[in-house]
This record gives sequence, structure tokens and C-alpha cells, in this order.
Amino acid sequence: MSVNASAGGRSRNHIVLTSHGAPTGVAADGPTLNWGAPSAAARGPVVATLTDPKRRNAIGSHAGSYAIYRALAIAAGALPADFKADLTNTAPSDTIGPHPQWGDAGKIVSLDPYGHMIGEAFPEAIAGGLDVRPSIAITRARIDMPEIRDALRAGRLSVDGDIIGPKGDVRVTKAAIEPVWYLPGIAERFGVTEGALRRALFEHTGGMFPELVTRGDLKVFLPPIGGMTLYMFGEPSRIGDGVTPLACRVHDECNGSDVFSSDICTCRPYLAHGIELCVEMAQKGGVGLVVYNRKEGRALGEVTKFLVYNARKRQEGGDLPETYFKRTECVAGVQDMRFQELMPDVFHWLGIRQIDRFASMSDMKFNALDRAGIRIIERVPIPEDLIPQDARVEMEAKVSAGYYNVGFQSQYDVTQGRGLEE
Amino acid sequence: MSVNASAGGRSRNHIVLTSHGAPTGVAADGPTLNWGAPSAAARGPVVATLTDPKRRNAIGSHAGSYAIYRALAIAAGALPADFKADLTNTAPSDTIGPHPQWGDAGKIVSLDPYGHMIGEAFPEAIAGGLDVRPSIAITRARIDMPEIRDALRAGRLSVDGDIIGPKGDVRVTKAAIEPVWYLPGIAERFGVTEGALRRALFEHTGGMFPELVTRGDLKVFLPPIGGMTLYMFGEPSRIGDGVTPLACRVHDECNGSDVFSSDICTCRPYLAHGIELCVEMAQKGGVGLVVYNRKEGRALGEVTKFLVYNARKRQEGGDLPETYFKRTECVAGVQDMRFQELMPDVFHWLGIRQIDRFASMSDMKFNALDRAGIRIIERVPIPEDLIPQDARVEMEAKVSAGYYNVGFQSQYDVTQGRGLEE
Repeated sequence: MSVNASAGGRSRNHIVLTSHGAPTGVAADGPTLNWGAPSAAARGPVVATLTDPKRRNAIGSHAGSYAIYRALAIAAGALPADFKADLTNTAPSDTIGPHPQWGDAGKIVSLDPYGHMIGEAFPEAIAGGLDVRPSIAITRARIDMPEIRDALRAGRLSVDGDIIGPKGDVRVTKAAIEPVWYLPGIAERFGVTEGALRRALFEHTGGMFPELVTRGDLKVFLPPIGGMTLYMFGEPSRIGDGVTPLACRVHDECNGSDVFSSDICTCRPYLAHGIELCVEMAQKGGVGLVVYNRKEGRALGEVTKFLVYNARKRQEGGDLPETYFKRTECVAGVQDMRFQELMPDVFHWLGIRQIDRFASMSDMKFNALDRAGIRIIERVPIPEDLIPQDARVEMEAKVSAGYYNVGFQSQYDVTQGRGLEE
Repeated sequence: MSVNASAGGRSRNHIVLTSHGAPTGVAADGPTLNWGAPSAAARGPVVATLTDPKRRNAIGSHAGSYAIYRALAIAAGALPADFKADLTNTAPSDTIGPHPQWGDAGKIVSLDPYGHMIGEAFPEAIAGGLDVRPSIAITRARIDMPEIRDALRAGRLSVDGDIIGPKGDVRVTKAAIEPVWYLPGIAERFGVTEGALRRALFEHTGGMFPELVTRGDLKVFLPPIGGMTLYMFGEPSRIGDGVTPLACRVHDECNGSDVFSSDICTCRPYLAHGIELCVEMAQKGGVGLVVYNRKEGRALGEVTKFLVYNARKRQEGGDLPETYFKRTECVAGVQDMRFQELMPDVFHWLGIRQIDRFASMSDMKFNALDRAGIRIIERVPIPEDLIPQDARVEMEAKVSAGYYNVGFQSQYDVTQGRGLEE
């Protein structure tokens, strides 16, 4: 079925809608995908590029949210609709995998394990003209964080000329990962039917992607959400080798603290502490890993987060640990929407079975990793002197609710946050 | 038209699709919206909440990308589908507007100027049971950035007990803003027809939101992209008053630099420099404004950004200023997708007509503000000693392409970035 655009400014006026049971927007001649198959050849490439609409085998498109900007660029005439990327010289700077976990459809459901190595994994499909795009990119960088320079000055770290360069810069390998969801696996992870998941994703986003409910044959979805970035310290090929000790921080984005160092939470201090542990581990011959997830404000978004701040700081009795979670629930309906259920996938992608030092007190993160079979040897709490002034409320509330708290000196009864007028 | 869910795990099995000309998913009984009307009452509320599907007057839903997480929460049974927010005590900490610019449909097309003050602006609609949600939230915070502490140590700033507290913490008012697009205005901004814009947004996202092409009567769209955050220094009510001098930095997100201080670009150093100018201006009785836009990697996303890094660093001849833009074009088809055309909207929202000190060398940002009628008195380049080692390539390339460069000591011919193996 199709309609005519009411005010189409382009020559082609026939719009193919995609909301119908019969294959229209996505035809059935895309390559077969066997998620969790034991090899790349048996698995097949994910095709979500819009230059190949008839050969797509996934719902959605690449670049997460930024697909909207690409569409704007095409509308504005800045980008040809049929532009194909020239991927010369873009291949990963470092090898990741393959690992045995890639051949287990239950272990990885929210990213494409072959997303960084399409050239190697799907040479025939690409030679045949399929527009396969990477959903993962891996590069190298030097980072120069003020907190690492502080650690050098304080003598907790020292320059070794390799992990830490002479100017205090730290050598890293980093990976950007776009979400690629295998819908049956996501449904299983949350204990719902695939149909119920698809229906909720369609209905409760205001009708985004009707193919979610009409095209049950398309099992993969690239949702328009932020992905994640990995920062790897030491030799990346030793991550997941089963013998090299690993320090790790799993960090969920908090722009107000991570970038602007707001004092209402422990986010940046804990991130910086985690990086210090990773650097220290790499200097001792181990490896370090920071997983940075784009899940602002517990995946509720920043508008909700700021509404909650106001509600906390204005409520009768002031901002107290005992009402910390309650205020988020009133505004958002839940305490948290980060869904740590999907978080372990990236550990399976890296072949990791054990984390030796885990820079986190979160019971949610620990439990999710534990359930995924990833063993955590030591949990490292944030040093108390790194907890900012106004962040005690959060800390007391979380420790009271089940946060790992060895050594934490609770002052629950006397903790109160700043008011809005203070 | 409707279909039955193939594997619906819920009791209600009738799915209403939203891709048809006749009002189905969104009915015609939502409140009338007159974008750019001279008052809130005449304009009417934007209703994009999914608890009121029949009374919606906008395409998409709140929270940008995070709508997907909300849908997941509903699928998982963690959030009731009909949850309505309790907005007690969430109102803005500080007043913004109304400003005359709010009544001009050409000046603001990408945010809802009444988004923070729904309670005041639409009391009758809310009393009548409409589920109107804020798309803007305003709160207060204290930020404690290492670069500000450096500026205090170096004597460039000093503690005044008001803007900068005794511990070096800086008092700010901050606003989180979700994108709300008035489609006819967006189309006009890009010089295309509304039909062509709607069609591109639908087709080139892989068929997201068929209502874009079927529901020409719905003029407002909440796209699933990141929004922006404002950091205001000094008294927020004096921003846009026409007399108080304003320092400003418009910053587009760069996670690798903003959070991790990668040395390949000037992003965080320029942001920190901009904040220092804002603090300085506020201490002198002026005001400061940082606009932080969620447009990672020039709105191309981080995967594309890392692919480009590899292509730059591996190309024959090495990473040079003369091929800096070319490598992005090869991978992405364009040099940049940030669309500064929409950026000035937030200045109109704040009532700003003049920026006294603008911490940016970007010709794109300057030209966009200039075209929007916002006068810039002084452009402040980044101090050369803040340009990180590997960022010279970017700087030389941009200055050569039209960046504001008074005082910049070019070393174009001898500048080369690090290779991947260095």
C-alpha cells in the first residue's frame, strides 16, 4: 500500500509505507540472519543501510538517533540519498575476538559481535554489492585527565613511558558500539514474549516503526538510542584471555557530573577512580576496561532528572536519603530504567569471564554480571574523600537499599542535601 | 486498520497502527496548536503523552531516545502503561520568559518555548485532565571543575563567595531541553517544502513514524534525538534583559574529549575556557551561558567518528590539515551534520539579542547566529596553550577553512597528527 505525499518537493512522489504484513519497505531478499550461529558465515551480515532497502534484514537504521540528522541532511540536499560510505582505512586498530560467546544466541542480544569486522566476516556479501556498515568502530587515543595528573602528583601513579606517557597522558584503545537488538533474545532476557516486546516498543513510543509488529520475520532492530564506548587500558588482545587480571568500571552517563562536575552525585569521581584502577592494573601487567553507557539520568533523560532534583530539594523535610528513590518514582513511575539486564553483553563480546577489581558499589550491576556468569573477585568502593558534598544523600540512600558498603561510614540520620535556595 | 499481534502476551490483542490517512492512533480531538501565537493560551499545549493517545496533537513522544527505555519498562512490567507523572515541586527553580520572540513562529522551531511552564501556561487544559508533560526542566546546581580550580590557583579567577564558593564550586542554574520540532518551521529553515522534509524524515530513517507522511494535520514532532543542556552563570533573569553583558559558549558534545580528555581535539579545553569566561563575566555583574548540544561527532555519532579517526591516521602521507575534512566526507558523505541552522532557537527562547563575548572560533556557529539577528560583539579564540598536542591538525584545518583566527599562529605546513601505531 502507498500514499502520495501531500506536498512532496521531490520528483519521486510514491511513498512506500512500511506498516503492512506483506514485505514492502523491506523485501524478503535480504541475506538470512542466524543469530548466535557458530561462525560469521553461518550468522550472516546485518543489513540496515537505506541504500539497500530491498536487501535489508533489520528494522531501523544505523547511527542510532543520528539517523534523524542524516535524514535532515538528505532533505536539505546536503547528502545524496544513495550515498555509500568509503570505508578505506577505517578497520579496527586492534583485534577483538572472535570469542566462543559470539556463537551463543543467549549471551549477546543487544550488539552485533561482528559489527567491527564486517570486511573480514562478510567478504562475499560485500563483494556481491551488499551495503554492509560497521556498527562498531575501534581506534586508539591518548587521554589526559586532570584526575590522573592529580594521582601522579600524589604519587598514587607514576609515569612509565608506556601506559602513562611523559606528560601524564594515558594510552587507550577505544571502541564505539551501536545497539543492535536481536528481538527474541531481548524478550527472553526480560521474560516476556517476543510479541509483547514488539508491541510495547511500537505502541509506547508513539508508533515508532510499525514493522516491529508487522514484520515478525525481521528479528533484528537497530533502536534510535545511544550506544556505548569502551576505553581499554593495556593490551586489548589480553582482555578476555582468561589469565590477565582485569580492572573494570561500568559507568552510566551523567552529563552534569561527567562533564560539568556537579556535586549532587558521585558519577565523575567514581569514573575517574575507576580509570585510575584500570591504569594501575595495566601498569602491573593486567588490563583495564571502562564501559561508558549512554543512559543519561538512569535512562530517564535529563529533563526527568532535573524535575526530580527540584522535587527532592523542595519536598517537605528537605532532601533526605529516605525519600531519595521515592521522588524519582513519583515523576518517572520507576526508580531506574537502565536495564542492567543487557549490560553484560559487552563482557561476552570481549570474552570476559572474570573481573578481578570492579570499581562499583552497585548491586544492580553486580547482580546482572553475576547472573550472566561473570565472576567478580573484588568490589572496590569509591574512597569516601571523593564523595562530593551534596552527593551524600544519594550515597546513603543507595547503601541503605543494598549497595555494596564495606568500609562505608554511614551518616544516614544526619544526611541532608542542599535546598534549592541555598 | 489494525492487525493482530502474532505473539501478544497481553490481554488486549488489537493493535492500532498509525500509518494511515484517517485519524486512528492519533485522533482529531487533541487541543489545537497555533505555533508562534502571541500568548500561551492562544498557542495551546503540546500533547505527546501516550496516556492520552486520542488527545495527542504531536507525533512522537517525550524524553527523546529514552522513550525506547520507557517502552521496555512497560514491556517488562516495571511501569504501568497508563502511568501519569506526579509533578509536585518540579516547577522551574528560576523564571525564563516569556519573551517577545516566543510569539514569532519563524524564530523558534525546534523547542517548545512554554515547555518549562506548563502549569502556568495551560492551567485549564491540565485541569480538564490533559496529560501535559514538561519538555524543559530548570534546576540549580554547584559545579566543581578541575579547570576552574586551576584558574583559581593561577589567579585568573578568585573566590567571591557568591558565583564561586569558598571551595571553588561554581553556582549555576541549568536547564534541560528536549527537542520539539514545528515541522513547517523546520522545513522553512532548510529551504525545503514541508512535504519533502516529512518524507525524508520518514524514508531515510528506515520508516520511523509513518504519521510524518500520513498526518499532515499534526505539525509538531518530538524526534528521538538528544536535546540540550544550558548552564547559566549569574542571575538567570538578567539573561536577555537587553542590558546585562553576556559571555557565551555554544558547545557540541564530544564525549571523548568532554569526559575523557582525549588529546585529538580542542573540545573540553574550549568548553572549560568558555566556562571560565562565563564565570568571569558573572563576577563582573554580567551573565554567562553555556549551551551544550547532544550532537556527538558532529551529529554523525561516535562509530562514524572513530572510523574517520582511523582513516585520518592511516592514510598515505599521514594525518594532515589538508585532508582533515576529506576523510569525514569519504566516510559520512558530508563534513558535518550538526545543522547550526536550528542552534539559534535557544537564544530566542532566552530573549537574547546580543552576545558580548563569544567563546568560539566557529564560522558556522557565528554565521547561524548572525543570520538569526543575534549580534556578536567579540569572538574569543581558545588560548593557544590550551590546544592539545594531537589537536593541531583539526585547528589548522578549520582555520584554513574559515575559522575565526585573530592571533592564531598557523603552522599549517608542518602540522601532522600522530599515527595509529605511535
